[in-house]
Amino acid sequence: MKDVKQVGRASVALETPLYIRQSATVVGKMEGEGPLASGFDMICDTDKFGEETWEAAESRMQHEAVALALGKAGISAKEIRFVFAGDLLGQNIATSFGLMDYEIPLFGLYGACSTLGEGFVLACMCLAGGFANQVMVVTSSHFAGAEKNFRFPVEYANQRPCSATWTVTGSGAYVLSSDAGNVKITGFTAGKIMDYGVRDAQNMGAAMAPAAMDLIKTHLEDFGRQPSDYDKIVTGDLGSVGQTLLLRLLEEKGFDLNGIHEDCGMRIFDSENQGTQAGGSGCGCSAVTLAAWYLPKLISGEYRRILFVPTGALLSQVSFNEGQNVPGIAHGFVLEHVDTE
Amino acid sequence: MKDVKQVGRASVALETPLYIRQSATVVGKMEGEGPLASGFDMICDTDKFGEETWEAAESRMQHEAVALALGKAGISAKEIRFVFAGDLLGQNIATSFGLMDYEIPLFGLYGACSTLGEGFVLACMCLAGGFANQVMVVTSSHFAGAEKNFRFPVEYANQRPCSATWTVTGSGAYVLSSDAGNVKITGFTAGKIMDYGVRDAQNMGAAMAPAAMDLIKTHLEDFGRQPSDYDKIVTGDLGSVGQTLLLRLLEEKGFDLNGIHEDCGMRIFDSENQGTQAGGSGCGCSAVTLAAWYLPKLISGEYRRILFVPTGALLSQVSFNEGQNVPGIAHGFVLEHVDTE
Repeated sequence: MKDVKQVGRASVALETPLYIRQSATVVGKMEGEGPLASGFDMICDTDKFGEETWEAAESRMQHEAVALALGKAGISAKEIRFVFAGDLLGQNIATSFGLMDYEIPLFGLYGACSTLGEGFVLACMCLAGGFANQVMVVTSSHFAGAEKNFRFPVEYANQRPCSATWTVTGSGAYVLSSDAGNVKITGFTAGKIMDYGVRDAQNMGAAMAPAAMDLIKTHLEDFGRQPSDYDKIVTGDLGSVGQTLLLRLLEEKGFDLNGIHEDCGMRIFDSENQGTQAGGSGCGCSAVTLAAWYLPKLISGEYRRILFVPTGALLSQVSFNEGQNVPGIAHGFVLEHVDTE
Repeated sequence: MKDVKQVGRASVALETPLYIRQSATVVGKMEGEGPLASGFDMICDTDKFGEETWEAAESRMQHEAVALALGKAGISAKEIRFVFAGDLLGQNIATSFGLMDYEIPLFGLYGACSTLGEGFVLACMCLAGGFANQVMVVTSSHFAGAEKNFRFPVEYANQRPCSATWTVTGSGAYVLSSDAGNVKITGFTAGKIMDYGVRDAQNMGAAMAPAAMDLIKTHLEDFGRQPSDYDKIVTGDLGSVGQTLLLRLLEEKGFDLNGIHEDCGMRIFDSENQGTQAGGSGCGCSAVTLAAWYLPKLISGEYRRILFVPTGALLSQVSFNEGQNVPGIAHGFVLEHVDTE
């Protein structure tokens, strides 16, 4: 068991840090043509990953991401005590069918695109509480599976408004350890649902911005920190429309994140040339961007400390068709550089 | 922080126990006409709970169950640090829209009908690790919402085979505390996915029996216990068909649970007279049966110790239509009588 401290309303400070021991990413064709290509472990030249359906393709990505992460860490699945995992599909089927063969006790999570954050928070509780020494966090999303699930089948070729985000086809797998690794986890903040009345399933950035605002505000207040205590405060998949709203909402609350805020959805694609509108989104977006872009900078020491905040929009085909709002949720965790003498 | 001990492959012994401080249940009409009627806190005379859709009705049940549990415990929502919750609907919409107004940081879970077990296990980690002093676990299911989601719309009036189970319309909410309560939680075991190749969405008992077997076997081995160390070992919603399979599977592994095994799905309805075939099922089944039937017996001391094992079948409309198997998962926790001098 590690020293932990409940901080404020919804945060925990890990006085003895936990570690990211290893990570691995698997992405589709378009992500592999984007600006982060060189940071991914596996890029598939189709989005089917050798499977017959979009859902099976997504399961295959999770399966391969876990295999790669285990291989890079030089450990077997038996050395992972629990896995915390989820995806965007109804009833988490990408996760169930993707991870089944590893026979690791599984906690299935649903936090929409915030699931990576939820997974890290719960995995940290598990490790810091002494319930395991090594666990994994895995999430994924697939563009075609998500479009079919939440909007229109891809074959329908609907027009996409400028506020639309493009669901990332990708999966990220993380081995977290209580002993050692090359990036430290020093705290986390759990988020609550925020509903500002957005009803546009083509504007997830607006739906999630209030939750991101609330999480970042709560985190800074709980820890008694300023935005400048972080090299970057990174959201999962707000995109450019959501970023504008987030910065404005935070400004209203007295926090200036200009120059400090970044969004994974604005990193993963070259939106202007790749036609991805406001940016990338999905459970896979933050999962692969963290590993491909932010972890190397934390390992090298270019960044000393970041707050990483995956953001999710809570809707289903049914809730949307029944006229419900699209509320948001976000969970955040603090990553820090490990000094090596 | 409490004394905890990793036990075996997938279990944790809580050497300083945690507690169920309070519980509350909300159920539909048919559950209120069944044998456990007197144990429920709220019975609605329609299954719409004043809402316009089945999904909103399910959200309303969760909302009311939480209100009742808080009221019975004499606390406000602000005194609950985190809530662990889930349901069967795609993207957990019953939970999102049901719990939003409480503004409690939320961990959305998906373990199909095992979600109550998953919630208890994660909540125990959270409390025993010192990350919170008081949390809630909430799950729900709704017959009509589940039929529409997984099988046929109710209006289609399909025939139901004898192996079918009847999804319980109900929600259970639990306040767990690290300090005091009237039932102790002394350990838990996390489950892995088990796939025996079942493909019949009308036979969930068969789909889940292997996962229940594996969880119970792992639990007994991890703790070095015999079935007779428990007054009852209770599964969530195998029904009569699943029970027969479970007892046979456990016998093959060398464990005789005859007379010790019970199933919430076989308790909640009078299947012969209520026409519920093999029994009750759903996230709500174990959630309301635990509170209405088992907790009173643990409080009175009639039962000294039980192992409670909610069981889930992992499928979605999409996975089923694409011809995937229906694997199962289960998570278990140990409840014990609190001696009061």
